[in-house]
Amino acid sequence: MSPNRSDLEDRLTLAELQDAWALLPAEDRVDALKELPPAAAQDYFFGLSSQDQAQVVLAFPLEERRTWIRILPPDDAADVVQAAPADDRDGLLAELDDATRKEVSALLAYAEDAAGGLMNPRYARMRPDMTVDEAISYLRRQARESPESFYYVYVLDDQQRLLGVVSFRELFSANPQARVRDIMHADVVTVTDQMDQELVSRVFQEHRLTAIPVVDATGGMKGIVTADDIVDVVREEATEDIQKLGGVQALDEPYMNVGFFEMIRKRAVWLLVLFVGEMLTATAMTHYQDEIARAVVLALFIPLIISSGGNSGSQASTLVIRAMALGEVGLRDWWRVVRREFFSGLVLGGLLGALGFLRIIVYQRIDPIYGPHYIRIAFTLFASLIGVVTFGTLAGSLLPFLLRSLKLDPASASAPFVATLVDVTGLVIYFTVASLLLRGSLL
Amino acid sequence: MSPNRSDLEDRLTLAELQDAWALLPAEDRVDALKELPPAAAQDYFFGLSSQDQAQVVLAFPLEERRTWIRILPPDDAADVVQAAPADDRDGLLAELDDATRKEVSALLAYAEDAAGGLMNPRYARMRPDMTVDEAISYLRRQARESPESFYYVYVLDDQQRLLGVVSFRELFSANPQARVRDIMHADVVTVTDQMDQELVSRVFQEHRLTAIPVVDATGGMKGIVTADDIVDVVREEATEDIQKLGGVQALDEPYMNVGFFEMIRKRAVWLLVLFVGEMLTATAMTHYQDEIARAVVLALFIPLIISSGGNSGSQASTLVIRAMALGEVGLRDWWRVVRREFFSGLVLGGLLGALGFLRIIVYQRIDPIYGPHYIRIAFTLFASLIGVVTFGTLAGSLLPFLLRSLKLDPASASAPFVATLVDVTGLVIYFTVASLLLRGSLL
Repeated sequence: MSPNRSDLEDRLTLAELQDAWALLPAEDRVDALKELPPAAAQDYFFGLSSQDQAQVVLAFPLEERRTWIRILPPDDAADVVQAAPADDRDGLLAELDDATRKEVSALLAYAEDAAGGLMNPRYARMRPDMTVDEAISYLRRQARESPESFYYVYVLDDQQRLLGVVSFRELFSANPQARVRDIMHADVVTVTDQMDQELVSRVFQEHRLTAIPVVDATGGMKGIVTADDIVDVVREEATEDIQKLGGVQALDEPYMNVGFFEMIRKRAVWLLVLFVGEMLTATAMTHYQDEIARAVVLALFIPLIISSGGNSGSQASTLVIRAMALGEVGLRDWWRVVRREFFSGLVLGGLLGALGFLRIIVYQRIDPIYGPHYIRIAFTLFASLIGVVTFGTLAGSLLPFLLRSLKLDPASASAPFVATLVDVTGLVIYFTVASLLLRGSLL
Repeated sequence: MSPNRSDLEDRLTLAELQDAWALLPAEDRVDALKELPPAAAQDYFFGLSSQDQAQVVLAFPLEERRTWIRILPPDDAADVVQAAPADDRDGLLAELDDATRKEVSALLAYAEDAAGGLMNPRYARMRPDMTVDEAISYLRRQARESPESFYYVYVLDDQQRLLGVVSFRELFSANPQARVRDIMHADVVTVTDQMDQELVSRVFQEHRLTAIPVVDATGGMKGIVTADDIVDVVREEATEDIQKLGGVQALDEPYMNVGFFEMIRKRAVWLLVLFVGEMLTATAMTHYQDEIARAVVLALFIPLIISSGGNSGSQASTLVIRAMALGEVGLRDWWRVVRREFFSGLVLGGLLGALGFLRIIVYQRIDPIYGPHYIRIAFTLFASLIGVVTFGTLAGSLLPFLLRSLKLDPASASAPFVATLVDVTGLVIYFTVASLLLRGSLL
């Protein structure tokens, strides 16, 4: 079939739809989906966030809703119901067939970020005493009944307790007359239905599996979590951490979907906390008013000193927090990390200090604004930068450990503490060094 | 089998090994693996990074290396060879069997972060004219020969070109006499072998697949990329972005594995760039020396002003950069984002300004350090904060678009530009407002 004009238009529409999606109101989204060929529309629908899927399903006329919610596997349907306004949830559940509705209701009982909230309750299963040939026929029957992908086959006893696992490859390559019990692996890696999704993603990473069975407290098999769910989890958790490190509360939604006042609220909280913390700098500065009055030149370098401390502190805390999130660094490593960061701070502070020193010497040659004591001022800047950068690095690396040991989230709380601590301490270091080095000359 | 004492010790060793791993030299790692039961040791080995796998394999005596490198699938073996020192690579390749060595060598020809470098060259395949029954028997034969997991079955012609795909469920549930050609999906989502891994991870996200076939420029099937590889990609890319946003060059290795001087180098570059940028603040301050000399009280709020601008700028740039990385926001959205950020900045600045205003009024009641003109000082702080926060938010949201349109990486370059721009401009805004509002009183 050669592409005709209407084909071409459809294809353009798909690409354009992707770009325009965020801007479209619900009704236009539905119209756009209707204009696509059904397969393309379904594919596009699968790729949407649960929020968008819920919005689209609800925007369809009643008689078409059923088609759209029913093409989703149970775990995704549960997410859609969860994402819908509270009033619409029962109506959406009513559109599902009985078996799926039962599964979806069971999934809705789990917290969204627990393994139970991620898992798919449909998976390939067999009994330990089947032969391989029997198991394969049995799987062919299951495949007809249950619309789900197969990764591994799980061996269950008659209480639905998990006994073992066999990969498709193993099942296919085994002696057709062998018993399932004899080819299965009994040492199965499992997660519990209440486990947090971040931990589940760590289990995936450690064992490099495609699917992990979810069991309840009594060892009963509840479903499977698959690697494609984990891709979303890893992305979500990284987004949360990035937003927290940037001093914003986790948005939990795409940037464009967050309402104006919701966005203000998520940002104002930390901005105000930081601001209150930073007010301490004004208090600290009050104590150095006399020094500034006598040597205004000291005020010139305040922003430079403060930002150098802040930058080195944020480097150290970012590195340590990410290493903690990846499981590369644990609480017990604190002394090695802090010792290493201390020496890094000294070297980095020395580099910045040398550059600062040089700057004053060079500028003085061009335009002697720093007065006759410029060498002393240069030394003050040099020594302060070493102190401030070392302190910033130390504080930035130590605080995540402290917060973690207090069971607080290092990502969300380190930034404001480090910023305030480093800025206030930076000023104290700077003016202390200045009063030592400039006493008898400028001060 | 009831656990005896030695079982218990083994289990302790595995948990302890996990904790102690980062601290152990190569020989101790090998000894620890030897002490574990073989299955546990292999499982642990699978979960290691390619760097650690390479180190462990090379630390084993020659006669045992073969066992360890051969248990890895070709794509992981290729990563290990890549991670080994250049001198050891040929030796490691020599340990592989002929077929695998050919596959691994082919994989090594790809860039590490291209789809070709991620893919597994082994996958389940069949011909379009087989019947379903024939195809299932054929798969049972393949399963015996090729040690890889099955997700989908790919339909290839005799030129190895990809014609379609069938899921295991579909194959199992189809009429046994049907032709593969009639049940396959011909509209396959594929990636090319040269596609960047970040793009590949987007394709996964959009289509929610477990495996995607990799084809070359002529449509020839080269391998499959599976979701578990994508989990690692998403995690790596997020780590890079987090490190860049924290003002560090991407480490590309676990924090603990980066050498001291390598770490200094990765941090010093941005720290020095930022420092040179921030030197402009000292230059700007030079112009306001007279104002500070006349009203030292102005100096007190410099750190507060600067940090408020910096914090609001980093909020905005973090949100925009992450939204860009997730594909939620594109270049064409710049005007909507910037307009929205402008109003956010006004509101946030108003909040901080009001708090700053209040602080001066309250403190003055307690201890009248701000003198008779404290109301004017409070207004100066209020107005400056609105200006500085609005400018910070605007600059933070606009710069990522500017950098992206210049084909630069927003994550690595925004932070320094925003910081410098916002700090220097913040000072100018503050002193300009001050000279307007305090003229005739303090100035």
